[in-house]
Amino acid sequence: MHSMRANVYRVPAAGPDDVSGVEALFAAGLRLKNVVAIMGKTEGNGCVNDFTRGYASRCFETMFAKQGVTGVCLVMSGGTEGALSPHWTVFPRERSDAPASHALSIGTARTPTLPFHHLGRLQQILAVAEGVKAAMRDAGIDDPRDIHFVQVKCPLLTLDRVSAAEHEGETVATRDTLKSMGLSRGASALGAAVALDELDHSEIADGDICKRFELFSRCASTSAGVELADHEILVLGIGKGWCGSFAIDHAVMENAIDPSAVRKARDRLPANAKLAALLAKAEPDPSGKVAGRRHTMLDDSDISGMRHARAFVGGVLAGVFGMTDLYVSGGAEHQGPSGGDPVAIIVEKES
Amino acid sequence: MHSMRANVYRVPAAGPDDVSGVEALFAAGLRLKNVVAIMGKTEGNGCVNDFTRGYASRCFETMFAKQGVTGVCLVMSGGTEGALSPHWTVFPRERSDAPASHALSIGTARTPTLPFHHLGRLQQILAVAEGVKAAMRDAGIDDPRDIHFVQVKCPLLTLDRVSAAEHEGETVATRDTLKSMGLSRGASALGAAVALDELDHSEIADGDICKRFELFSRCASTSAGVELADHEILVLGIGKGWCGSFAIDHAVMENAIDPSAVRKARDRLPANAKLAALLAKAEPDPSGKVAGRRHTMLDDSDISGMRHARAFVGGVLAGVFGMTDLYVSGGAEHQGPSGGDPVAIIVEKES
Amino acid sequence: MHSMRANVYRVPAAGPDDVSGVEALFAAGLRLKNVVAIMGKTEGNGCVNDFTRGYASRCFETMFAKQGVTGVCLVMSGGTEGALSPHWTVFPRERSDAPASHALSIGTARTPTLPFHHLGRLQQILAVAEGVKAAMRDAGIDDPRDIHFVQVKCPLLTLDRVSAAEHEGETVATRDTLKSMGLSRGASALGAAVALDELDHSEIADGDICKRFELFSRCASTSAGVELADHEILVLGIGKGWCGSFAIDHAVMENAIDPSAVRKARDRLPANAKLAALLAKAEPDPSGKVAGRRHTMLDDSDISGMRHARAFVGGVLAGVFGMTDLYVSGGAEHQGPSGGDPVAIIVEKES
Amino acid sequence: MHSMRANVYRVPAAGPDDVSGVEALFAAGLRLKNVVAIMGKTEGNGCVNDFTRGYASRCFETMFAKQGVTGVCLVMSGGTEGALSPHWTVFPRERSDAPASHALSIGTARTPTLPFHHLGRLQQILAVAEGVKAAMRDAGIDDPRDIHFVQVKCPLLTLDRVSAAEHEGETVATRDTLKSMGLSRGASALGAAVALDELDHSEIADGDICKRFELFSRCASTSAGVELADHEILVLGIGKGWCGSFAIDHAVMENAIDPSAVRKARDRLPANAKLAALLAKAEPDPSGKVAGRRHTMLDDSDISGMRHARAFVGGVLAGVFGMTDLYVSGGAEHQGPSGGDPVAIIVEKES
Repeated sequence: MHSMRANVYRVPAAGPDDVSGVEALFAAGLRLKNVVAIMGKTEGNGCVNDFTRGYASRCFETMFAKQGVTGVCLVMSGGTEGALSPHWTVFPRERSDAPASHALSIGTARTPTLPFHHLGRLQQILAVAEGVKAAMRDAGIDDPRDIHFVQVKCPLLTLDRVSAAEHEGETVATRDTLKSMGLSRGASALGAAVALDELDHSEIADGDICKRFELFSRCASTSAGVELADHEILVLGIGKGWCGSFAIDHAVMENAIDPSAVRKARDRLPANAKLAALLAKAEPDPSGKVAGRRHTMLDDSDISGMRHARAFVGGVLAGVFGMTDLYVSGGAEHQGPSGGDPVAIIVEKES
Repeated sequence: MHSMRANVYRVPAAGPDDVSGVEALFAAGLRLKNVVAIMGKTEGNGCVNDFTRGYASRCFETMFAKQGVTGVCLVMSGGTEGALSPHWTVFPRERSDAPASHALSIGTARTPTLPFHHLGRLQQILAVAEGVKAAMRDAGIDDPRDIHFVQVKCPLLTLDRVSAAEHEGETVATRDTLKSMGLSRGASALGAAVALDELDHSEIADGDICKRFELFSRCASTSAGVELADHEILVLGIGKGWCGSFAIDHAVMENAIDPSAVRKARDRLPANAKLAALLAKAEPDPSGKVAGRRHTMLDDSDISGMRHARAFVGGVLAGVFGMTDLYVSGGAEHQGPSGGDPVAIIVEKES
Repeated sequence: MHSMRANVYRVPAAGPDDVSGVEALFAAGLRLKNVVAIMGKTEGNGCVNDFTRGYASRCFETMFAKQGVTGVCLVMSGGTEGALSPHWTVFPRERSDAPASHALSIGTARTPTLPFHHLGRLQQILAVAEGVKAAMRDAGIDDPRDIHFVQVKCPLLTLDRVSAAEHEGETVATRDTLKSMGLSRGASALGAAVALDELDHSEIADGDICKRFELFSRCASTSAGVELADHEILVLGIGKGWCGSFAIDHAVMENAIDPSAVRKARDRLPANAKLAALLAKAEPDPSGKVAGRRHTMLDDSDISGMRHARAFVGGVLAGVFGMTDLYVSGGAEHQGPSGGDPVAIIVEKES
Repeated sequence: MHSMRANVYRVPAAGPDDVSGVEALFAAGLRLKNVVAIMGKTEGNGCVNDFTRGYASRCFETMFAKQGVTGVCLVMSGGTEGALSPHWTVFPRERSDAPASHALSIGTARTPTLPFHHLGRLQQILAVAEGVKAAMRDAGIDDPRDIHFVQVKCPLLTLDRVSAAEHEGETVATRDTLKSMGLSRGASALGAAVALDELDHSEIADGDICKRFELFSRCASTSAGVELADHEILVLGIGKGWCGSFAIDHAVMENAIDPSAVRKARDRLPANAKLAALLAKAEPDPSGKVAGRRHTMLDDSDISGMRHARAFVGGVLAGVFGMTDLYVSGGAEHQGPSGGDPVAIIVEKES
């Protein structure tokens, strides 16, 4: 009787092209073909003209291609503001002879190619919901309550894609390509919420996407990229057929300065364990206030509000955990409540 | 037998010109002539071209001038990065008939005009040390250990001032006017350290200023401004002849992600008290690392490292205190250890 | 038989609070009460959180108030990118005994208070058109072809204003306050176009504002401010009842790199004359290209596209005129063709 | 009797990884092994944390490596501010049967590895001078007056390199790695000046580097990179043994707003020719003024002065040539006079 074992490695990066720390893992015995996903924090601005994400992906693709390995899920998030530290988190999994118990489990899936007139609409929500369910099956998890983190990489519209759709007589949700990123992220997050039974798809209409922010998932983390036309999905949870020393839980900070829910989630995890990875979303509270006091993040024309938010929430979380190589990512449409920040915590039990 | 009573008001600011909250205090009975100092956080970049400091000072000067009041110490610090909130902290003091006990005390002093060839040299250190001692006397505090915060506003060199000094046959410490700001801040912090018996002036040579950062004060907060040629000094501590419900203590964060010393300082203060003001310094760790991990604040050519540091340390402290109208100020030469952050905490006991 | 004489002074500014150069004009004989308008370029970012505009206005208001003068039109534009130089342009006018000839003429007007549900709609266009006609009468100009520059300062929506309108049962054009700035600037520019017979108001519908950019004025320069609820209008042209040595013409650069139309306009003006003021608008070409080549201004999340555009177009114009104290202002909805830049040129004939 | 023929291709780039336009040249018949150099303008900030340079270099290296080609000189300059357009300029050369005449010639050379304690000192100047002479020989040019552009890619100090030098008992010119970039650029520019007989090496002492800016080359363009320990040198000039339709000349703008010298250089080139490439340096005038008027580039803590300067000088030059894919590069120690901008112009004669 076999079980599966997931592992988590947090590796410092000296720059977006520094894959040497990951290569060292392989030199030390980690098998490349076991790697399911790499999530990176790179030191760009995390906004439109952040090329550190593409640069890092290119370097990893080259590294894997040399060994004939393809299909690894690469999720690069730009922005290491404040004292946040650029790093890679490597997620391998493998078969094990150890008895299965409750442990960190990893699943992935890809959806079919999305017709571009479906982007930012109910059809995308449903496609992602199916994909998340497939990733849950891959992770051996039935109960949505055992899922603690859902990462979705989703497509966006380009001028070419808009033209192609219109050529076929279809109408797209928006002709504004930047706006299509938000719509795709939002629809993907709502798709995760549907898969996790947080929302019923019948409650959601096309017009709610990026409008009714009271609809959200407490576990979703989504990012849009030009390089794909389908969805690449990674789920992390606690699976029954899994073994190993890693555990995961999650929490939602109700605002940017209240880490109490995060502390409680940490306290639900084993005490004799060290932090393996922290995966969080951050955004400037759209109300313009935090806990009743004005913030200036949305009025600052010199620094993007996303950069402010990552620096600040990064500080809040680093102050709690005493660690700076945290995955804090911006752009949180329908990912946690408005102004609130979803946080997943992975720990490794000490043996 | 009289005593003195200090008070602390924290007032939101809707912009650098919004003095309406302070005017409301006066309308509600606070007497203008009792105001000793106003410390403001304004929403500029906190760097060279931050005009929100001058704008705010201008608005307060106009307000006081209308009432014939002059000489109020105005300390404006730019930069409310992350969720930090623009606000004013008003410090009045008055005579009281209540019995004296140990309570928050406020003292101020001005030094004689500084000959400009003394700036950034031992003579400035000695002048500030004398000034801090005078402010301590004004606050009725003998023991340096009862001082928890020293604010010094110090002069800087301009091309005109350099020329004037050279015309008299003197040599200035630097002809670089930007550099003169750091030297003046550093010498002023060392002057505070000498007054507070943290350092002996015989240990310090001209060449140590902004070089030997292992010499520092745990309480000093200094800023340079073009508008004065002497030093404006404010000390906060616990004085014996004072009454009232405010108490103060201080701590030094050894690095940007360890608020444990701050928590301990808070725990030394009365439990049945609410936070009245938090006064902190922040800077990017000059080693390029925090707790062994690389940060990117000093390599970011888009955002000043000072802005990163205020956002991040602001997050750490806001996560501890659940409040965003904190005074977090950058530029910390000889103010706390290299990469470490001095923090003063003022609480108001509940009655 | 009297005539009117307009004058133009270009004064360097050492900072947003430096009114000393203008005070020197008064000390040298210029009468304060003759000053109709001051147009300033200040060194802020020219975007949302640019407080140098308010700071400069405050300083001028204080200066005028001391002399009992009110009602001077103050137009402050932030952003002196590249080598552009902060400065004030002072426009006085006075009665003269010299015979009237064709010369620079200045007129001003204010519209009635705008009901806030009219903002960004046809009613605002009509109100501004009336105001521009009033300013033309004030300048003694009948023929719209004699107008070369129309500056309109227009209101914007705030949350309070939206609430007030909705309380009265009205619907506003947008509830997004930032968006209301663009709508107000756009409607004001179209109002100028109607007044100048560039457009017929029957051609324009509410939905065209900030949408159909093929509708535009070749002379309008508009800016929105929170401090007014009506419109403050300044027109510059060639009036018949005016004397003096100043002349004005205008041109529209068809794209950011073709100053040939500007050279031609300069050549239409007297040769034995020196440049007195140059008033231009600049914006990143919304097509993402200039002359067929991609630009990156709209994808730069570190620097606002407006700042890029002012720096670059400032360079183009400075290269033509050999001068850096040019008034180059951003935000050009319906002010010139899409991606094109309207430029007014004022020269002073040598005597 | 053979001659050499140089060619120049200007290719748009859709991003730092877009080598497709260059690949299209190869598909159309250009031979990879003929390519001597590629100079690129990429859309990063052109400062410390600009990873678009490395990303672009990586993509070209991969492209060349696939075909077994190595040793191509890749010069990537970040920063396409204003309407400047990202692009590559490809320089191939080949043997030709056409008769030799005066035409654009290209030469390259590499110096021996630089002992790191020589960096920023007279020894580096001499090493570069030798290298430039070797590149001149490679280009078949004897007379320094026939050289119009010298590009030097030079090394910098890292902590490891400093340690290595000190371990051997040597002292380095600076332990500040950022400062070492300026020293290396400055020494390299002075090396070019020596090779071109603009300066005599006996006039220059170690202490003059990055100090005495009245010493400079009118043709040098230098950039420091961590990836090499020697110098990579490219010279462009008019060689006698060359054929083809390209010609080159150069000029120095005495300040940022006077393109008259550039116009004159263009006029010295054939009239029936179109612009093939423009290679310029730009920097904020260190005096703080341009033509007597204050600029704010050096006081702007939000935008690097280099970015301001490239945008503005880019505008000046684009206004002259009506083209935005210009190579405008920052950081001009000893490259042209202080505040002045060297410009090389390459044209292609129409046949």
